[in-house]
Amino acid sequence: MRARLFAPLLALGLVACASAPPPAITSGSAPELRGTGDLGVVIERAAGRVQVVEHSHDSRLGTVEGLGDLSHAHVAFSRDGRYAYVFGRDGGLTKVDLLTRRIDRRIVQAGNSIGGSVSQDGRLVVAQNYEPGGIKAFDADTLALLADVPAEYAPGKFSRVVGLADVSGQRFVYALFDADEIRITDFSNPRQPVTTRFPAGRQPYDGLVTPDGRYFIAGLFGEDGLSLLDLWQPQTGVRRILAGYGKGEEKLPVFKMPHLRGWAMAGGQAWLPAIGRHEVLVADTRSWAESARIPVKGQPVFVMARPDGRQVWVNFAFPDNEWVQVIDTLEKRVVHTFSPGKAVLHMEFTPRGEAVWLSSRDSNRISVVDTASFALRRELPADAPSGIFFTARGQRIGF
Amino acid sequence: MRARLFAPLLALGLVACASAPPPAITSGSAPELRGTGDLGVVIERAAGRVQVVEHSHDSRLGTVEGLGDLSHAHVAFSRDGRYAYVFGRDGGLTKVDLLTRRIDRRIVQAGNSIGGSVSQDGRLVVAQNYEPGGIKAFDADTLALLADVPAEYAPGKFSRVVGLADVSGQRFVYALFDADEIRITDFSNPRQPVTTRFPAGRQPYDGLVTPDGRYFIAGLFGEDGLSLLDLWQPQTGVRRILAGYGKGEEKLPVFKMPHLRGWAMAGGQAWLPAIGRHEVLVADTRSWAESARIPVKGQPVFVMARPDGRQVWVNFAFPDNEWVQVIDTLEKRVVHTFSPGKAVLHMEFTPRGEAVWLSSRDSNRISVVDTASFALRRELPADAPSGIFFTARGQRIGF
Repeated sequence: MRARLFAPLLALGLVACASAPPPAITSGSAPELRGTGDLGVVIERAAGRVQVVEHSHDSRLGTVEGLGDLSHAHVAFSRDGRYAYVFGRDGGLTKVDLLTRRIDRRIVQAGNSIGGSVSQDGRLVVAQNYEPGGIKAFDADTLALLADVPAEYAPGKFSRVVGLADVSGQRFVYALFDADEIRITDFSNPRQPVTTRFPAGRQPYDGLVTPDGRYFIAGLFGEDGLSLLDLWQPQTGVRRILAGYGKGEEKLPVFKMPHLRGWAMAGGQAWLPAIGRHEVLVADTRSWAESARIPVKGQPVFVMARPDGRQVWVNFAFPDNEWVQVIDTLEKRVVHTFSPGKAVLHMEFTPRGEAVWLSSRDSNRISVVDTASFALRRELPADAPSGIFFTARGQRIGF
Repeated sequence: MRARLFAPLLALGLVACASAPPPAITSGSAPELRGTGDLGVVIERAAGRVQVVEHSHDSRLGTVEGLGDLSHAHVAFSRDGRYAYVFGRDGGLTKVDLLTRRIDRRIVQAGNSIGGSVSQDGRLVVAQNYEPGGIKAFDADTLALLADVPAEYAPGKFSRVVGLADVSGQRFVYALFDADEIRITDFSNPRQPVTTRFPAGRQPYDGLVTPDGRYFIAGLFGEDGLSLLDLWQPQTGVRRILAGYGKGEEKLPVFKMPHLRGWAMAGGQAWLPAIGRHEVLVADTRSWAESARIPVKGQPVFVMARPDGRQVWVNFAFPDNEWVQVIDTLEKRVVHTFSPGKAVLHMEFTPRGEAVWLSSRDSNRISVVDTASFALRRELPADAPSGIFFTARGQRIGF
């Protein structure tokens, strides 16, 4: 957690170079005419490189280098599925052409960044930054800066931004760790964004929106519980839910804060990683009251639903990070436990959920697993892989 | 309704010609390297032709001819988004390459067909047929026949198949109009499919699955109410829900049976076209009990949720088929009424819902409407357009 929020800030300031020449690619051949619905990107974090992959035949198509510090990289996609927007820790924002496997554009837009999203209409790319604290909107084609929205909460004081998510109406919702706030910025007029502020509770450290884009939920580092904002009627304000969610009075050691992005909504229930506990919490999405706790092998990091909601897959913090468990959401119990490799950092389901890709950083591989039989379909070599992102995200809300 | 179920059967029998030469295209240029996530197909029913369109800039890219009788055409997509599978009324199944805008393969697989779907893993295309009654599975690449599953319900008697939907585990669920049955066929071994049968109630005329693929719901022509099958635990059998759904004792005139495919799930509620009444019914998706009725302008045909669930759009049967209404699902009332043209047959939302495309058959045009402002974004000419289908369907369950 500390490493995530308080990584050394490289005080590079803002260096925008929208017309930087594309670096050479390291591999690849003449661009092939092909669909883009089955493409994806695997982050090779140490090498500053991404693999371009496809999940129809589970293969690697090529690599693209020169993307900078990818230690907390996030990827979003253009609405046509051709381009990946790769957000690097060092503030780099790179538009990668998945068909030619070249860098189309690259800018360094901040000193420390943790991700970004694409607007509902696909025309804006918005980055969330720690340094300088705030969000910035760019033209999705050219990466030209359209709007800078500093997260200023007191004169000259700027908060780190976490949990950015795109929602309908060209809006983006996010939380301010240092300012205990949730904000909604509306980019309907991209050059004149309008921001609304809400009190969030103490130190929101991450956030997510439900798959329909209706609810924004922020996890709190400074107190127990979560903050819920109904984006369909934000005027009703933020309310506290699941007061038992958090470290509580026992002050459990927390090896890694869970990623809220991974929360699963399935069967009218939300499946949440408990903080510090070896449990997955289940909450009713109508009342937001806790409905069950499921014991698991370690401290959960990602808790992700298979797209049909029948299974929830869980990975864990150190020292249990070689393990993955599968929960059957109907039976509400673990039905499968296995180790795809060492230091399992991320999982990504194929769009309709027949397979899942898992990255094992310390085993230098990607494992592709059949979600019905749990059989290993394929292993692919990768250099310390972390995030895996498929283009179908570009067709969905809140990614 | 009668026209839909009892159209003249062309007793062609099975004519498979998987290697038919591709007809010439009528327009188009050299294939362009591009993403496929924003592509779509518009059916020009009278001309046996489709338009290939894109929704990033709302334009027509070209046309493909020679697809036969498209009077009740349905379209499914390959998992990579490159190919459209067009199911014609005359049993034609055509694989259209959206990038080259040519026919890649074409077979005539039945005498009378009303649609089909693609398996979860993308490797099978399954057609639902009236004549000969049953379903057939084809290799998605080659269109080679892999399995023929006749809907035989008594010696030598074959039912028309309706409501086919793909669900997880290579399964397809569908209903038999003439046999009062729901069936699930599992193609895990494509050449040795396994079929399970359930009693469905009288004359199921259409069906759908919920977006998570869990529930199959069949509308009944022969009695009031709907039949619900929980595909996560099919052994619990079919149960009757919404006994008030149907024509009831008044025997209202029904100008066109609603399409169940259009049902909307939003905010934990299902939004259903009432049969014969000028109403949209709202049912709670936990109890499946009716929770509200919303008066609308005519007999609803398609009732479709914007992808975020905040709006439900409704078109109508004759004589109100020039109108479209928009329901706000939070306020549960009509908030907008307009006429995009004459004989509005279909609607398709962009994947994240910022726009909707509407086909007006008798005005020979497609209207693209902004769903936030209701402003007309663009009109495109089309020859008696009916169905509109975007490639994002290929990434979703139950399409």
